[in-house]
Formats: sequence, structure tokens, C-alpha cells
Amino acid sequence: MDNDLASSCRSCTRLIEHVDKLVATRTCVRPTDELAAISLDKDGASVQKSRFSSRTRIRSILGRADGGAGLAGQKVEISGWVKTGREQGKGTFAFLEVNDGSCAANLQVKVDACVSDVSKLVGTGTCLTVDGCLKIPPEGKATKQKIELSADKVIDVGTVDPATYPIPKTKLTLEHLRDYTHFRARTTTMAAVTRIRRKITLEAHLFCDEHDICHIHTPIITTSDCEGAGEMFQVTTLINQSDKLERDRPTEADIEAAKLIVKEKGEAVAQLKAAKASKQEITASVAQLTEAKETLAKVEERSRLKPGLPIKDGKIDYSQDFFARQAFLTVSGQLHAETYACSMGDVYTFGPTFRAEKSHTSRHLAEFWMVEVELAFAGLEEAMNCAEALVKDICNSLLEKCDDDMKLMAKNVDKACIDRLLLVASTGFGRVTYTEAITLLEKAVAQGKKFENQVEWGIDLASEHERYLTEVLFQKPLIVYNYPKEIKAFYMRLNDDGKTVAAFDVLVPKVGELIGGSQREERMDVLMERMEEMGLPIKQYEWYIDLRRHGTVKHSGFGLGLERMLLFATGMDNIRDVIPFPRYPGRADL
Amino acid sequence: MDNDLASSCRSCTRLIEHVDKLVATRTCVRPTDELAAISLDKDGASVQKSRFSSRTRIRSILGRADGGAGLAGQKVEISGWVKTGREQGKGTFAFLEVNDGSCAANLQVKVDACVSDVSKLVGTGTCLTVDGCLKIPPEGKATKQKIELSADKVIDVGTVDPATYPIPKTKLTLEHLRDYTHFRARTTTMAAVTRIRRKITLEAHLFCDEHDICHIHTPIITTSDCEGAGEMFQVTTLINQSDKLERDRPTEADIEAAKLIVKEKGEAVAQLKAAKASKQEITASVAQLTEAKETLAKVEERSRLKPGLPIKDGKIDYSQDFFARQAFLTVSGQLHAETYACSMGDVYTFGPTFRAEKSHTSRHLAEFWMVEVELAFAGLEEAMNCAEALVKDICNSLLEKCDDDMKLMAKNVDKACIDRLLLVASTGFGRVTYTEAITLLEKAVAQGKKFENQVEWGIDLASEHERYLTEVLFQKPLIVYNYPKEIKAFYMRLNDDGKTVAAFDVLVPKVGELIGGSQREERMDVLMERMEEMGLPIKQYEWYIDLRRHGTVKHSGFGLGLERMLLFATGMDNIRDVIPFPRYPGRADL
Repeated sequence: MDNDLASSCRSCTRLIEHVDKLVATRTCVRPTDELAAISLDKDGASVQKSRFSSRTRIRSILGRADGGAGLAGQKVEISGWVKTGREQGKGTFAFLEVNDGSCAANLQVKVDACVSDVSKLVGTGTCLTVDGCLKIPPEGKATKQKIELSADKVIDVGTVDPATYPIPKTKLTLEHLRDYTHFRARTTTMAAVTRIRRKITLEAHLFCDEHDICHIHTPIITTSDCEGAGEMFQVTTLINQSDKLERDRPTEADIEAAKLIVKEKGEAVAQLKAAKASKQEITASVAQLTEAKETLAKVEERSRLKPGLPIKDGKIDYSQDFFARQAFLTVSGQLHAETYACSMGDVYTFGPTFRAEKSHTSRHLAEFWMVEVELAFAGLEEAMNCAEALVKDICNSLLEKCDDDMKLMAKNVDKACIDRLLLVASTGFGRVTYTEAITLLEKAVAQGKKFENQVEWGIDLASEHERYLTEVLFQKPLIVYNYPKEIKAFYMRLNDDGKTVAAFDVLVPKVGELIGGSQREERMDVLMERMEEMGLPIKQYEWYIDLRRHGTVKHSGFGLGLERMLLFATGMDNIRDVIPFPRYPGRADL
Repeated sequence: MDNDLASSCRSCTRLIEHVDKLVATRTCVRPTDELAAISLDKDGASVQKSRFSSRTRIRSILGRADGGAGLAGQKVEISGWVKTGREQGKGTFAFLEVNDGSCAANLQVKVDACVSDVSKLVGTGTCLTVDGCLKIPPEGKATKQKIELSADKVIDVGTVDPATYPIPKTKLTLEHLRDYTHFRARTTTMAAVTRIRRKITLEAHLFCDEHDICHIHTPIITTSDCEGAGEMFQVTTLINQSDKLERDRPTEADIEAAKLIVKEKGEAVAQLKAAKASKQEITASVAQLTEAKETLAKVEERSRLKPGLPIKDGKIDYSQDFFARQAFLTVSGQLHAETYACSMGDVYTFGPTFRAEKSHTSRHLAEFWMVEVELAFAGLEEAMNCAEALVKDICNSLLEKCDDDMKLMAKNVDKACIDRLLLVASTGFGRVTYTEAITLLEKAVAQGKKFENQVEWGIDLASEHERYLTEVLFQKPLIVYNYPKEIKAFYMRLNDDGKTVAAFDVLVPKVGELIGGSQREERMDVLMERMEEMGLPIKQYEWYIDLRRHGTVKHSGFGLGLERMLLFATGMDNIRDVIPFPRYPGRADL
């Protein structure tokens, strides 16, 4: 079966396995040629061209089970960037390691000096398109390559200025690379992270589609202050308008000039009158004077406009802002997703969310992506089951489909990362109540375990507590549920004990909290009581309360942070290195 | 084959067809039971439960080829909202039309008064979960239902307050519904649009994945002013900081109180000294005085802080803003996507984009979603091929997988919508240069066609021109390419004529421009010349120029507006009705 096909969906993979089983066990089955092509193409003898380009992706050569050896003798056009290049045989030929981003492996390309000026090709970062013939490298060479490309023609070259190229061959720190977000995907590690990110993203979509969870787009700009979720960025055009006003403000000289014109026009009228000019002439002159006076009035009025933001009754006048009210970047799509869960059934949203918190940690971003699932007619347990299934599904897909990139991460970044995926994919998650978790932590403290943050019922679990629970005590993913209501949001469903809410967190080794979720309070009176207790402005949430007023429904949901999932999967240490363009206090490059 | 499976991917569908063919044509094939289950379940005899809930989706009953008849006799739990309900037989029973968002069709539920108080169930908008038995409705009844549910038990009810429910049974205008974005997906049309939007979104992802176009997340918050794409929203925390400063500003009374304390502490020291108190006592008293003085100094300092935005050298001091510089919401992910195309090969981004333009038309939103594809090692023609293939693919998937929703749109909204999809799916797109298009339009004018906007070489085609070309002249989708450079962006590749750039627009009936794209200028010197010509601040784009300085590559891309695609597919007239939470001047509800 070919790679593209295998990566498309899990039903597909399942089916292929069935067909393969059929083919293998029943001699009477003679698959059609087409089916054979689908099943056998991975190690077939033909080179796959891209549909929208004449090039062949390097993955479709080196990603084969035979490492590409079966394609020996084939003509092929490849493109990519030189990772390392070296002239050999006194400049009579060059070996280039070329990568096109399709996989971690490089294709070795041999270019003879008679084909192209090889000195222009060897610089790290050089881009080229080459036509040539795939060949088995000569035996005895100290090479792991199963195949190499012998260039017949160099079709295109994009050279590098080595003096200023910021990511030369030398090993660079991830921190250094953050200054070059426009180039860092050319490095092996960042490219692998990019491909793993791609796979997790797609798998989240496929999982939801498979379970008929409807994708909806919740808004990025919101006028709802999702109380408690964190500091918000403001979205506005007021400053721009004020800047524009300031730029266009008439100077004193402008006013003087306008006054001068009025004076001149006035004198002209006086002269015409004194000279007893014709009525027509005088009328025309008066008209000019009137116009000059009007211009002056406008200039003076504009010069009197106050600079800065528009103020009304001592407050900023948001009626003049783009949306005629104060607007923010969303901190979570959940409340909006709930409106659609209360009409479409199960829904999810997968979009960017924002926090304007000045956190300088390796775990926080100002802009990050979240998968938020909202299940209708589902309680806490169903939401926990769904969250567990989603995480397992993602881990499985990485193990199956990102094999080479995961091996690379295990080699270069975190030895334990593949084992972690295997553990999560194969083990049922532990489940304990918050109260049980506190008891376990207290027991650990009694036995001598030291925490920086004190353990007692009512605390919000700190990262050290979460990691101790999942890494040391349970040694597997753990769901903690039924948290004290005081430390959780207003919309979480109050349990019968009156003290806890039906909230849950999924904790995993390496990152701690990966998912947070809850059953939502569907009882209008209880919800409003909670909101009053917490001093929330009921009026702003009328639409949210409306969902309980009209056809209320038991529902539950959770949010998975994409970047947290990536830290978990890849073993990368800093969240700024698992998103293409990280935003954090003081930095928003490009 | 079952519904869920069929909707998962096209490779899958292809495979199933193969297997079906094998099964049908080769008598010696005996599929395993499992395979049979996959192939036959659609009209099988068992009810499918949701994995994360005990309910069965109404689509899995009514969406069967037999309309659900084959499930007669099965016990099932369903949930949903009552569309219409009526008490009958003097209140001895009620018929409820129930919808759960999974499909356009409603399931008819019969509830006897002995099962539940039916008067509480019949209100439009009531939510319920019902356990019951599927039955074939009695013959002779004037019903199109192939199956109905006879309720054994009403498990859960969420009532409605009919006095305040904003979307009762009566037909409501789409405009009216815009005031109730939290409820409008409960209407038949908006729910269908939501499902079609879901399918288009997924299909775009699957198309890209199938062609190994790597998904990347370009940033929402950007410090690059993507010149020419439109007005931008500013993202800031400065106003918030300034507000906070204002709220915390000490009053005159605060200062007086602080002064009073200083005075009292001073007197206390004086008294102690006069009374020759112990050194220890005096020292303690002096310490209190010092503290009081420090407090006063701080209060006075805070009271002197200027209100409003921080100003430095006459300008807003953005060094105090969250990102230490001015930041905006992105107008396009293209430039950022290019950085990844120049390392990962083919990439796409699918995210929200923003325009702060005060357009009050039915075609513009302040927040909308775009699929932006960037192909490495590809020129204009390849990009046009890819754009055409993507649109065709989406149309095909809607025809195949959104059959019932499309029929609903054709019935309720736009008779022509299915024919339009068929046309686009089956017809090769026309291709003409801009110059040819102008000639065709001029010819039309010469023959008496009247346009509001004048036609001459150099104009930007107006919507009326675009629609005339695609709807009247070509009567099919049309790609216009090679536009005058004066009306296009700086990054588009200059053609050899020196007058035009390698840009293209895909025009379709009903909406006009659906896609805009171009080959990007990969020659550093030409790019910089163009930027200087247009007066762009080169320094801000150093990173973009860097891509040409180091390993430059021929590349091309395009952007497809998701909401435009939806207008085209559904026939809806107003773009505000094809996105869950529309944002436009003066409105950003929720």
C-alpha cells in the first residue's frame, strides 16, 4: 500500500489490512490490477511525480521500505535545499545532501563538474532542482544510502550568501534559531516538529469527523469577557483613527495661510466694490470669499479636535471603535461552542486562542492553538472517555505514520519520547477524584516527599504535584476529576456535595496538564447562583443563560492544547519551539 | 458500507468500491464477517450508538437508504430539540418532530400521555432524550416518514419559555436571526449551512493532505504590515494598562491622608525626643516616619502619572505594549506561509484573517477564514491547476456527501445551487489573460452591454465585469491571469513584458472572484525594485527578502475564501449568514 493512502484515514488502514489479509490467506482472490497497484505501490518500480509540479518528493524515494533501491535506473527530477555539500576529486564532482522538507532523510546527489559549476552548489542552504538518474551507490563506500541521484542537468539554482546566511552547517541552539523564524524550518529538528505538528492537527480533525463531531469556527474577535480564563488582548481601530487625526492636524502655518486667503479675498471684494465693478464680478468675488471663510472654519475646527482616544463622560468612547463596543481576542472558544452544541449536537472548534499574561515560562504562549470539544447529551464520564480516546488516537497515529520523525526526536531531543507515546497509546488512563489525589499527595509528604507548594484540600494542583502523580505514583496518564468549586470556573457543573464541580484534568508525564474539561452547568438557577456568588455581570452573559432557559441539555467538553500535546509527543522543552511563529511578552517577530 | 466510514476519506471510498466490485464479480471471494459488516452496515439491521453517549444520531436512522424502515422493532435512545409538536387525541398523546443537528430530517416521535406529561414536550425548542421503539407508521397516514419512534420513556426534558423564545415555529428572516447567533443553528437553513461549512473545511484539509501539502499555522498576531491587503486591526494591552492606571490613580483625599500620617509620625518622633525616650523607642518611631514618607512619595508620584496612552518623543510609546512594538491582526498568512514553503516545500495555512474596512456589503466580513496554499518549485500554471483541482474536489465532495443538505438549499434558498456544483465539478475552467478579458468586455460594450464601471486596459475588474465574464460569456468558471502590475501587490512575479504580473483570479458564477493567487517574485533584485517603486519600507521586509537572498525558489500560491466558497455552494446571499458569528462594522455579538 502506498504512503499517501496509508496516511489518509484509519478506516482506510483498517480496510487495507482486511484486504491484505484476504489477499494473503485466500488463494482464490486475484485482486484487480488497480487494487494491486494500491497495495503494492510502496515498493513498486515507478517514481511518483507530484501532481502540481514535475518534481518527485524525496520521501517517495527514500521513504520506501527498500530505501529507494528498487527505483535504480529511473529518471527523476528532484528539488530541495543543500544540507551539506562537498567538492571532491579536485573539483571534478560534488556530493550534495539535499532535503526538500518531505522527510527527515536527505537524498545524496552527485554532480559532475561538466554538468554544472559545482562550486556554486555546495553552500549549505543552496536551493536546486536537478534532473538525473537514480543509481545504487558503489559498494564499499562508507555510506548508508541505498540510492543516490546522478545529476544529468541542474535545472535551477538559488544560491546562498554564506557571509550572511544565519543558519550555516554548524549546530545551532534552539534559542538562537528563535531569532530566525523565517529560516528555522530548514533545520532537521524544526522540520520534524513541523511534520509532527501537521500530523497531530490532521488526526484531531479526523478523530472528530469519525465520531461525527461537527467542526465549527468560533470567533477570534469577541465581545464576551470569558471571565477567569485570563488577561485579554484588546482589538481596536481607535488608536489608528487617533493617529490619523494627529497626522492630519492643521499646523499654525496652515491656519495662518487660510487666514491670509480670507484677507486677500476680502480685499479683492472691497476693491471691486470701490471700483464699482459689475454686479456679476462682485458676486463671483464674494463667492470666493465665502469659500475661503468656510475653508478657514474647517481648518480651525480640525485643529481644535483633541488628540488621543475619544472620551465621553470621562471614559473612552467605544461607540467610535470598529465594532461600536470594546472587543478582545478570544481566550477560549468554549462558550461559543456551547451555543452550537445546543443545536447541532456534538461540535468542536480548533483555532487560535490568546492570553495577554506576562508569563516568561517555557510553557506559555500569548497565541496558541486549542482543540475544544463540546459533547451534547454527555456527562463528565463521556467527556473523559472522549478526551482519553482522542489522546490515544493521536499517539497511535504518530507511532504509525510519523515513525521516522519520531525516531529522529528520540535520537536528537528526548530518548523517552517514543516510549511515552507507546505507554499512552496502550494503557488505560488512571482516574482519581481530586480528593483522592490530595490524600495520595499528603501520604507522599508524610513519607518524606518535599514539594515547594503546600498540599492541602482546596489548593489548585501545582505542576510539581501533577507530574508527581502521573510520573511517579501512577506512571501513566491520569485523569483527576471533581475539583473544589472555589478553584474552577463558573460554568462547571456543581456536584451534589455542594463543594466540588464536575471538572477534570488529564495529566501526562513530561508536561503535567494536557487537557482540561468539565460537565457544564445546565441548570439555569444553579448557574445564575454561581455567577452571583462570583460577582459576574449577569447581563453580559444573558445569551449563555438563554441556552439554559430554552431547551437546556446536559453537555460536557474539554480543551486540548496543541502545543502542550507537541511538547509531550516530541520531548521538546520550550513551547516556543513547537509553533512556527511564537508570540510571547516582548516578541512577535514577522 | 456505513455512513461514518464513507464520510472519512476518498481513498477509503475508492477502496470500498474496489472491494465491493471484487465481492460482486468474483464468486470465490468470501469476505470475512467483519468486512461484510463494514460493507453492509448502512442498511443493516442494527442501530448505531454514538461512542461517547448512549444516544443514537437521527442521521443514522433516517439517513439510511431505506429511510430507517429496516430498523423497525429496534430499541433506541434519541435526543434532540422539538421542531414542532402537537397534542392529539384530546391530549392522550403527542407527535413531536425532533431534530438533533445530525441531518436536516426530523424524526417523528410519538409520546403517550401515560408515558409523560405531553403538554410540557410540544413547545418548539424543547430539548428531550427519549427511549423507545422504532416502528413503521400506520399505513394510510398522510406522512412521508418511513419510520417513527414510539416513546417508552422520556429520560430528560429541557423546557422552553415560549414567551421569550426568540425562534418560534414561524418563519423568520435571516436578518432577524442575526440578532440571535446563539440560537440560529437551531433553524433548518442555518444548520444545513453549518454542515456544508464543516464538509468544505474538512475537504480542504483532506485535499491538501492527499497532495502532501503540509499544514502550518501562520500567526494571527503579526508585526508585519502586509502592505496593500487592507486596513488592519491593532492588538494592544496599552489601553487596558492605561485604564488600570486611571482606576488606581490616588485622589486628593488619598494624598491628604498620606500627608496626615507623615505629620502624625513626625509629631510622635518629636514628642519622644522631647520626652527623652529610649534610643530604641526613638529609632522605631523614626522608622515609622520614614515609611510614611515613602508611602506619601509613592502616592504623589502615582498621582502625577499622565492618563492615556504612554507617549515618548511625541509618539505612542509602544515599547510599553505587550510585544514591545505595534502589533496587528493578520490580513493574510501568505508571506508567513512563504517562509515555510521555502523550507518544507508545499504548505498551506487555514486560519482566520481580518480586515478593518468599513464595508457594509453582503460580501465582506471583518473576520473570515481562508485556505492559503503555497507551492514550492511551482509556477503560475501549476498554481492554477491546483486551485482548479481544489475547487472541483470541494464541489464533488458536497455532491457526494452533503446530498440531503444541498437538496434542502436548492429547495429553500437557491434552485440553481446543485447545478452550479455539477457544472464546476464537471467542466474544465476557462483560462484567459487579463488583456484578452478586457478585449472581450470591450467587444460586449461595443455591442451594447452597459457596465457601471468603464472598461479599459489597466482597470481592476469590478464584480459586474467578473460575473459577466463567467456567467454570460463563458458560462463556467474562468481563470483570468497576467494582470497589470499597477493594480496588483508587490510580491507578484513581473512578467517579461514588464507591464503585467503572473497573478490570477478564479471567477465563478454567483460570487465572481473566489480565489486570488500568483507566482511570487523570487528574483531579489526585481523584488526590491518593485518595493522601492511602490514606496514600501524595505527594512520591515528584510526577512521576506532574505528568502530570496538565501536559496531562492520558484514558488506560487493562492487563497480561497471559505465564506465565498460557501456563498457559491449554498446560494446564500449574505456572507453574514454563512459564518457562525459574523463580525462587521458595528457588530461583534457574543
